[in-house]
Amino acid sequence: MRTRPLKVALLGCGVVGSEVARIMTTHADDLTARIGAPVELAGVAVRRPGKVREGIDPALITTDATALVERDDIDVVVEVIGGIEPARTLITTAFAHGASVVSANKALLAEDGATLYEAAERHGRDLYFEAAVAGAIPLIRPLRESLAGDTVNRVLGIVNGTTNFILDRMDTAGAGYSEALDEATALGYAEADPTADVEGFDAAAKAAILAGIAFHTRVRLDDVHREGITEVTSADLASAQRMGCTVKLLAICERAADGRSVTARVHPAMIPLSHPLASVREAYNAVFVEAAAAGQLMFYGPGAGGSPTASAVLGDLVAVCRNKLAGATGPGESAYTRLPVSPMGDVVTRYHISLDVADKPGVLAQVAAVFAEHGVSIDTVRQKGRPDGDGEASLVVVTHRARDAALSGTVEALRKLDTVRGVASIMRVEGE
Amino acid sequence: MRTRPLKVALLGCGVVGSEVARIMTTHADDLTARIGAPVELAGVAVRRPGKVREGIDPALITTDATALVERDDIDVVVEVIGGIEPARTLITTAFAHGASVVSANKALLAEDGATLYEAAERHGRDLYFEAAVAGAIPLIRPLRESLAGDTVNRVLGIVNGTTNFILDRMDTAGAGYSEALDEATALGYAEADPTADVEGFDAAAKAAILAGIAFHTRVRLDDVHREGITEVTSADLASAQRMGCTVKLLAICERAADGRSVTARVHPAMIPLSHPLASVREAYNAVFVEAAAAGQLMFYGPGAGGSPTASAVLGDLVAVCRNKLAGATGPGESAYTRLPVSPMGDVVTRYHISLDVADKPGVLAQVAAVFAEHGVSIDTVRQKGRPDGDGEASLVVVTHRARDAALSGTVEALRKLDTVRGVASIMRVEGE
Repeated sequence: MRTRPLKVALLGCGVVGSEVARIMTTHADDLTARIGAPVELAGVAVRRPGKVREGIDPALITTDATALVERDDIDVVVEVIGGIEPARTLITTAFAHGASVVSANKALLAEDGATLYEAAERHGRDLYFEAAVAGAIPLIRPLRESLAGDTVNRVLGIVNGTTNFILDRMDTAGAGYSEALDEATALGYAEADPTADVEGFDAAAKAAILAGIAFHTRVRLDDVHREGITEVTSADLASAQRMGCTVKLLAICERAADGRSVTARVHPAMIPLSHPLASVREAYNAVFVEAAAAGQLMFYGPGAGGSPTASAVLGDLVAVCRNKLAGATGPGESAYTRLPVSPMGDVVTRYHISLDVADKPGVLAQVAAVFAEHGVSIDTVRQKGRPDGDGEASLVVVTHRARDAALSGTVEALRKLDTVRGVASIMRVEGE
Repeated sequence: MRTRPLKVALLGCGVVGSEVARIMTTHADDLTARIGAPVELAGVAVRRPGKVREGIDPALITTDATALVERDDIDVVVEVIGGIEPARTLITTAFAHGASVVSANKALLAEDGATLYEAAERHGRDLYFEAAVAGAIPLIRPLRESLAGDTVNRVLGIVNGTTNFILDRMDTAGAGYSEALDEATALGYAEADPTADVEGFDAAAKAAILAGIAFHTRVRLDDVHREGITEVTSADLASAQRMGCTVKLLAICERAADGRSVTARVHPAMIPLSHPLASVREAYNAVFVEAAAAGQLMFYGPGAGGSPTASAVLGDLVAVCRNKLAGATGPGESAYTRLPVSPMGDVVTRYHISLDVADKPGVLAQVAAVFAEHGVSIDTVRQKGRPDGDGEASLVVVTHRARDAALSGTVEALRKLDTVRGVASIMRVEGE
């Protein structure tokens, strides 16, 4: 057992950072035993130095993060400030000065992971980021290591707790989107500016990270097709319920059937109530991984929050410290397949389309012809006149699987039909 | 990239071994890229050399496993023969000759893991065994590494697919135990001699492994309280259904509330239908892990079978090869807490007790008094006369949480009451 401590610099001391610092203090003996050497908090970079931080020696607090990561005695930098800059520069500087890095920064990893990986590689250091996706749920390590001898074909999951909470409230309490968002904000599940969550940016960043690791290729945020939940209505939830489904914001990463390309997307989708993801409530996360040999695996747990995220950070900290003591590094970037990312149009999926149509003979035939022209096969149609008998009817069509480009082309063509008064809702159907 | 291949010796070429060999061949390029060097199958030890093994060079086949593990050019030995001997001697010999070991041998790890860990440690080699518990489900690595900075308080799961299949059939098809066992045997879920599964030995071995890793202490098979499913009846399942529960064979590892001891046990238990484990069907496995910071995590997937187990073996093979190239080793035994394993009597649980009693006034008071004498508090009682009106009634008692010793003492005392004609069933209630 080495007695000289490994030195840790903490960048950021908010909800996650303060919990990391707390556990490092309260569980120092456990961490020492598990690492094989003591770990010592050597500095904490913050924006607001005046704030009282219980349990943290005020002498460790600094506002000069750059000076902290430039110290040559730092073994591991824990980055929990988030965002692109200054995080990126701080991390690459840390590598250049000999530190390994544990990060929870999904936005940066999705935007420019390659720069971080390359800096880690160049300096022979570790870059670990279990906390960047799905909080405490072990997902990065299982994909990077446990499934390293297998071929992952699909990752499908709920990776954003805020939107899951909102959709869950819309589903179970019949709330409208705004009402459910207000509730999420009041309970602290949604931030004051909920854009990153409700527009799907957060989930898309996670999808990019997961797809890159799962398929051993580079996937960036821009490669991920993204649709948020702001246009999901109570009527969509009601339609889903009539189909024995619910609506979830899913992140879906797939290897094409021919194995030559991959896709990554985030959008709301109907999934059957019988699917395990349908019963993921409130702000929980759950991710399915389908691999050639392993079959279908599911990982479930709290997807965010200070303590769960700190758990993931500390697991990485132990691993990185162990590597440092062994003079080794863990897995780096694995992007050898160089599989290209195909656009959304190439994704094969199913649509649930709800149309407002003129209530007269021949409309169904006309609509069906449009589907046929686009090579889209119809699974079921439900047609009914409106209760108010105003000469309009609704037509709900669920398609068989087809390329998304064909499906969206069908919808565009339907919009142009005289007899179609409007497209009330379009939603993909997944998980069958 | 190193071009000289790492040499792998395979001990055993049954369902799992042949799949490991197959994937090593078909996915050689992927493995090379992920490891950083090619891996080569250097020898395969089998019992029946005459059997045709598709895709395996007959020149690699040997019946002399000892000579194979004594070869000094072997980098990794993959042991998938199972059982205590000769597996133990082969593994320790492999370490002594410089190889690291990947094993799927739960029985040996639970019986005498310490000997293996010590041999690995002494020779500076890796011992990895993800495949020993819950097939392809990443569980050992998350516990050993992802949660290395957290405090695990509880592991609760379904870790035996055979018994889960049987109980699922009894629950959903109303089958009796023998009938369900026959079906499991016919479908290949149960072996010709199902003892290891139905008597809980397999699950108990897994519980010992999980408890040791989760609590950083040594837990052996003998430390695990074990009850199988052979005495579970259709009536138990019916009782469970009346309570909104089902019956599962659970492996439960817990840290005592004061943190000073641990328990590990395997027994059938009623769990509420609302609990995620209740919906684990057929031969699937699922494990809950509760940790102080991470909260409640669940891992789900196929718990057995050639391909899933091979996936876990190959993930370990990649990790061990990477370590070897880096001149490092992964995590070894972590048993520093030296927490003792308490006996079953110290476990705090709830009982569901079904009694046949005389149908006369005062019986409930007498029964309730016995519970009170043992300090066991009753949650609910359901009393009813038998339809045949033969002067007997049944009394179903569900207790609050109490020490198992107090609960079993209560049952013993109840058996001695004149008015209690028999104890129709006793089952613990978990997952609430």
